[in-house]
Amino acid sequence: MERIPILRMGRCLLVTIQVDLQDRTAIALQDDLAAKIEATGAKGVLIDISALEIVDSFIGRMLATISGIARVLDAVTVVVGMQPAVAITLVELGLSLEGVRTALDVERGMRLLQASGVLDEAPEPEADHVDSDRN
Amino acid sequence: MERIPILRMGRCLLVTIQVDLQDRTAIALQDDLAAKIEATGAKGVLIDISALEIVDSFIGRMLATISGIARVLDAVTVVVGMQPAVAITLVELGLSLEGVRTALDVERGMRLLQASGVLDEAPEPEADHVDSDRN
Repeated sequence: MERIPILRMGRCLLVTIQVDLQDRTAIALQDDLAAKIEATGAKGVLIDISALEIVDSFIGRMLATISGIARVLDAVTVVVGMQPAVAITLVELGLSLEGVRTALDVERGMRLLQASGVLDEAPEPEADHVDSDRN
Repeated sequence: MERIPILRMGRCLLVTIQVDLQDRTAIALQDDLAAKIEATGAKGVLIDISALEIVDSFIGRMLATISGIARVLDAVTVVVGMQPAVAITLVELGLSLEGVRTALDVERGMRLLQASGVLDEAPEPEADHVDSDRN
């Protein structure tokens, strides 16, 4: 099974989605991302979907779910790189990605996170910002 | 055909390789990367291969070729995230990735580029650092 790598860049995590996601890959990504947010104390998550030419309701829901998971782990998610055709299709499908922030590319997404101030808070010790009793 | 996205981050380009590369995908990546280096004036290229569990001689040569292309376009390539087992296999295969710089992860790769000073030079106007007659 393919796993999608999660790259750490400072206080952000970057995920590039390149392949059509299957159920298991998507669930593995959610698990990995939640674990990585906890382990690194990341405050921002950038999900690049510039390689996707089709975003169906499954991926739309997954993006919303990841954003929700990140939120309760105190991180902000920005979906970046959406192709114009994908945006049109999503809205036509009635999926408006409520609650998911978007930016045109990784750089703008990073600036959005910086401007929102979530990266400014004092760094915390690793794995210290969520309840560590769970492990 | 899948294309591998190339993300711009400041004066660096980031490529995450997640899928087994076919010949055409690899050649498309070389073309795209060369075009992107020219268009952005990027000085560093980070290639993340943390998702690859197998790196055969084809991928090994591709990494060396990309590194060579970037070099003549005045950019430094760092291959990051290689799994220990991959490193062992590469050396056993006699592929030591001569001339390719490596780092353990994207953050360390970025620091390597910063420490080497290639990112410090004054920014140039876009698409101005290589001979633009070619287009």
